[in-house]
Amino acid sequence: MKEIHGEEARVPPSDLDRHLGDLLKNKDAADLTFQVGGQSFSAHRCVLAARSSVFKAKLLGAMKESCSAASPIEICDMEAHVFKSLLHFMYTDSVPPKLDVAMAGHLLVAADRYNVVRLKQICEEKLCAHIDSNMVATSLALAEQHGFPRLKEACLQFLDSPSNFKAMMASDGYEHLTSSCPSVLKELIARILPAEWSVAKEVVMKM
Amino acid sequence: MKEIHGEEARVPPSDLDRHLGDLLKNKDAADLTFQVGGQSFSAHRCVLAARSSVFKAKLLGAMKESCSAASPIEICDMEAHVFKSLLHFMYTDSVPPKLDVAMAGHLLVAADRYNVVRLKQICEEKLCAHIDSNMVATSLALAEQHGFPRLKEACLQFLDSPSNFKAMMASDGYEHLTSSCPSVLKELIARILPAEWSVAKEVVMKM
Repeated sequence: MKEIHGEEARVPPSDLDRHLGDLLKNKDAADLTFQVGGQSFSAHRCVLAARSSVFKAKLLGAMKESCSAASPIEICDMEAHVFKSLLHFMYTDSVPPKLDVAMAGHLLVAADRYNVVRLKQICEEKLCAHIDSNMVATSLALAEQHGFPRLKEACLQFLDSPSNFKAMMASDGYEHLTSSCPSVLKELIARILPAEWSVAKEVVMKM
Repeated sequence: MKEIHGEEARVPPSDLDRHLGDLLKNKDAADLTFQVGGQSFSAHRCVLAARSSVFKAKLLGAMKESCSAASPIEICDMEAHVFKSLLHFMYTDSVPPKLDVAMAGHLLVAADRYNVVRLKQICEEKLCAHIDSNMVATSLALAEQHGFPRLKEACLQFLDSPSNFKAMMASDGYEHLTSSCPSVLKELIARILPAEWSVAKEVVMKM
């Protein structure tokens, strides 16, 4: 099946995303309730199952019977506004118009947790495109902890400059990076060793 | 909410339509069954309600309790392959890749019946763009019976030529047109009267 173009140029663009966005907003025929950070969200089992393999396993598998609109599903370790944007993406395939870097980080973790693949790609691209010395430590820790190789490589490339490295060391996220991901710092040091000192890389990695 | 472009150019296009198409195919969490022309179709109440105001009224209104996966909803006066394409459009916003004129006519009637607005527009445009002397009588009857003014006008314009008119009179659909919509034939005759005979239009319309 494909879209008709040309001769049917008078036909307006797809409204599937708008209709599903309305469905989320109006809660028509909602058969699930979530409790997230003290807030309640209604949703539809079949939409979440269609959009996330993790929700599909949860909602159509063993947990099936225990999930209903009457017995809320509690989501821990996620802020309500992040879950709200995750839900919105699942229904409409779109992200908040002013997706800032911090929100992209939160959404990346959420999308990874529920395997919402395209949202993960959007957020990872957003973070890769907006690496600066303030955010790089946080992004690097995120990439290392959750396994986002493209983001990790982009951070390492950014830090391959003494001035960026120095600024990163003064940033808020540095302490978190050193405590949560000490091995990635070793990896960084090993990368910036002069070529003739490649023999020392092994030493660094064992420190 | 809007789509991100440019910096996230690596992100693949929307997959909402594909995911919902898979949902329809796999029948995951389906909570409705339809019986159409001897065939059975599974579907999801919330998707149909989101996509069709007529289904919304039926499935979330008074009929709500009587519709379930276990008690099939019977759809009369529609062929199974037409209902299948209608369902597919509701989930994916796309029509069969080789939508022929006959199928566009069937789908136009189906989309009108369930108020699937964009499908109606696509089918009406398809019919308007493919008027020929074989199909014009059928399309005109359809336009007149279901109230599609753009299609009716396109047919009338096509028939504003003696050779097209003559060919239409020899076509299979002509008899159906004369029996089902005699008034539109009068309208045609009135249109082709010479300008100086405009006084006779009234006579024709009263014949």
